[in-house]
Amino acid sequence: MSIQGIDPRTGSPVGAPVPVTPPEPLLAAAAGAFGVFKATTPGVRAELLTLLADRLDAAASSLVPLAVAESGLPEARLTGELARTSAQLRLFASVVTEGAYLEAILEDADPSATPPRPVLARWLEPVGPVLVYAASNFPFAFSVLGGDTASALATGAPVLVKAHGSHPGLSAAVAALASAAVADAGLPAGVFGIVFGDDEGVTALKDPRVKAAGFTGSTTGGRFLFDVASSRSDPIPFFGELGSINPAVVTPAAVAARPDEIVSGFVGSFTLGAGQFCTKPGLLFLPAGHGLSFGPAVAAVAPAPMLNARIADQLASGLTDLSSHPGVAEVASGPDAPAEGSWASPRLFITSTDAFDPSLTEEHFGPAALIVEYQDENDLFAALSTIEGSLTATVHGEPGDPFPVARLLSVLSDRAGRVVWNGWPTGVAVSWAMSHGGPWPSTTNSAHTSVGATAIRRWLRPVTFQSMPDDLLPPALQAANPWKIPRRE
Amino acid sequence: MSIQGIDPRTGSPVGAPVPVTPPEPLLAAAAGAFGVFKATTPGVRAELLTLLADRLDAAASSLVPLAVAESGLPEARLTGELARTSAQLRLFASVVTEGAYLEAILEDADPSATPPRPVLARWLEPVGPVLVYAASNFPFAFSVLGGDTASALATGAPVLVKAHGSHPGLSAAVAALASAAVADAGLPAGVFGIVFGDDEGVTALKDPRVKAAGFTGSTTGGRFLFDVASSRSDPIPFFGELGSINPAVVTPAAVAARPDEIVSGFVGSFTLGAGQFCTKPGLLFLPAGHGLSFGPAVAAVAPAPMLNARIADQLASGLTDLSSHPGVAEVASGPDAPAEGSWASPRLFITSTDAFDPSLTEEHFGPAALIVEYQDENDLFAALSTIEGSLTATVHGEPGDPFPVARLLSVLSDRAGRVVWNGWPTGVAVSWAMSHGGPWPSTTNSAHTSVGATAIRRWLRPVTFQSMPDDLLPPALQAANPWKIPRRE
Repeated sequence: MSIQGIDPRTGSPVGAPVPVTPPEPLLAAAAGAFGVFKATTPGVRAELLTLLADRLDAAASSLVPLAVAESGLPEARLTGELARTSAQLRLFASVVTEGAYLEAILEDADPSATPPRPVLARWLEPVGPVLVYAASNFPFAFSVLGGDTASALATGAPVLVKAHGSHPGLSAAVAALASAAVADAGLPAGVFGIVFGDDEGVTALKDPRVKAAGFTGSTTGGRFLFDVASSRSDPIPFFGELGSINPAVVTPAAVAARPDEIVSGFVGSFTLGAGQFCTKPGLLFLPAGHGLSFGPAVAAVAPAPMLNARIADQLASGLTDLSSHPGVAEVASGPDAPAEGSWASPRLFITSTDAFDPSLTEEHFGPAALIVEYQDENDLFAALSTIEGSLTATVHGEPGDPFPVARLLSVLSDRAGRVVWNGWPTGVAVSWAMSHGGPWPSTTNSAHTSVGATAIRRWLRPVTFQSMPDDLLPPALQAANPWKIPRRE
Repeated sequence: MSIQGIDPRTGSPVGAPVPVTPPEPLLAAAAGAFGVFKATTPGVRAELLTLLADRLDAAASSLVPLAVAESGLPEARLTGELARTSAQLRLFASVVTEGAYLEAILEDADPSATPPRPVLARWLEPVGPVLVYAASNFPFAFSVLGGDTASALATGAPVLVKAHGSHPGLSAAVAALASAAVADAGLPAGVFGIVFGDDEGVTALKDPRVKAAGFTGSTTGGRFLFDVASSRSDPIPFFGELGSINPAVVTPAAVAARPDEIVSGFVGSFTLGAGQFCTKPGLLFLPAGHGLSFGPAVAAVAPAPMLNARIADQLASGLTDLSSHPGVAEVASGPDAPAEGSWASPRLFITSTDAFDPSLTEEHFGPAALIVEYQDENDLFAALSTIEGSLTATVHGEPGDPFPVARLLSVLSDRAGRVVWNGWPTGVAVSWAMSHGGPWPSTTNSAHTSVGATAIRRWLRPVTFQSMPDDLLPPALQAANPWKIPRRE
């Protein structure tokens, strides 16, 4: 068995097929490496992350063309995405060095407490080997050396990546670079591994040596794997980022103040990267009688290749269903797409809150969106109450807006991990304050983010040492604080 | 249908039966109260927690006798446990007021970042209504107003308690007190509710208005409920604290230095509260030839009532299996227990690493434990590698101990949430640095604690506001920092 990369622009094979990988040796190596890797200093892990970033940057000229050929995404976008990916590795190097992520807490004894308190020292330790499922839509940033891998390695957890079948050649090349960096950093080979093959990935997920998993992909695939992880005899946390409809709401005042910006911003956002972003705004709520015309802006967007034939087929069949939904009409579309390969053109649909139902809140992965016209605020809030969790929610309003904006933000913050004001949700900064997560089905676990510094918390568990002699404590908890990390004490 | 309290000392009914509760009105009330409760200031929530603590303390003289009658636990223990429970409510009042638990992060825009960063503000919001399953073994501290309830209310999450069937009268009395406090605090009734009945509890767990659940109890019961929570069409986090064997290891040097202390400390710990602590040390690893005699200490421990007849029956049948395991012998036992009611006497067994297998690592809930004699360190580490996750692990060693203590601590910290040095694991302080959690099966989610200040993190999810005007941000994230909380900015 092997995995063949396909150029979605032409449907032709790219490079040699990559054989599937027996997971057993990789699992044994990861488990074997854990003791050594978790005991490394923050400095060693920061050096590894920085080395990975440097090597990735240095290999850009060979990796980007491979990514273009296997994903059909434009060279400029992939060049930027590679830079984002190395920046992300460097962010986690700084997170590790700073050390607040360890949540260290030292407490003196208090015999008068109820119950009496001994001397306690608490920090976070890595959970053990982590399995990372790479995504198709960000061949660098959510793939082999993406955010899940970077944040897990930062903790001292060995990582086993399940490569995405849409870019096997690129995955193998990045994995080779990563393994070389691990070796050059003097760390055991089991710190990083890669497995090719869907069945092999499931075998790894069921293995007791794997202690947590991260995933970015479809709701169907993520739910299947979440169920595998949860039904193990020893269930493990599965952090899946699945589907998201990302509602955007425009108030009447915003339509009146910024009609052109709303049209161009929305069309730019839902068609960016051929609409293959988890944060694509899939629903736009507009006041009835808005008078906005989307036709010219949509018609100006060129057709683009989808990541693979399956995604293109699912988009086409999903939009056929959407078109035939009572009360839904197509309001704008782009130029015809080429017949060869897996291309798609932008398509925009429209309905009203009267015809709105939960079937219209399903994500269509690709350059498609649905406008929902509302009559008044009651109407809007009723429709919003039927929408499941999303990664993002967006509001366009004005200063002194007569619309109940505060209530709108409260309702939307219950349903989304990021609430955007007068912007668009595509474009996810990699930083301390970012959250990329949200209630089901946008993730399997709304308590965490998969982007940004705090994504590291997913791979950690608290351990408290009671009455432990100073020299037997981990350095992070010793009286002298040799790592100079922030602590509560 | 109704739930009848039974005095385990006599087998006789206590008080009137408590009817099972239809969950629908409680679920509707909890969901309805969420918007108001989550928007309260920290001050309002701290006042509610303090009021609950005060009311609990004030009702001690009526509540403690009820708890004694329904649990068979001694009055002094329950008086102390009530004080621990009110102290826990007050701890969370201070956690809320201090505000670091909100993990607030403010970031300026950085157009030069890859990708560009807008102005971001992140904090943690409550997940929504929380379902709390009360435990039998701590009728105050892990029940109606126990740690799960206190930590969830602290966040602004309404709580629905599933009462434990072993103390229905006490549960109803504490719930009445809690509801009155909620009303007196001017909060909606749905902020606190209680449901009686196992089927009713499962109905509530399946309900989409419930967003997370906490549980303390058996591995079988916890696994069943974890599976219910995980197999919902919208899975929710289920924080279960299940079974734990809590291994303790004594080095040869410690045996030589402190033989009497080790015998009396261990026997005191495994028989405390009739061995009905989640943190009871169930396995004691001793060097072969230790020469310790446990007979007199065990014989001096009086029989005690078990919490209910089911627990007493399971202990008896479990110990019958243990006695018949090849290579296991009974080494000490207590005086005969009374025939009426549900009493048990302490029993201590012994085996060696040669005969040790995973069936011997199962928890026997009650005053029973197993000594495992090891020949050398290889022998010991091989045996430890077969033990599943625990809440605690204990090491007794000496200064300059020739035993590989550092390696032992590293191995044990992978398997337990709290590592105790030269003490015993029963007795769980309620404080900032405590961790009460551990790998499966000791919990369903090793990333969190159910005791101590950081237990609050279980009921929270991050939300980031992007480019949001200051007056539309939650107060915690506004420039003026009106709540005066610590923030990363």
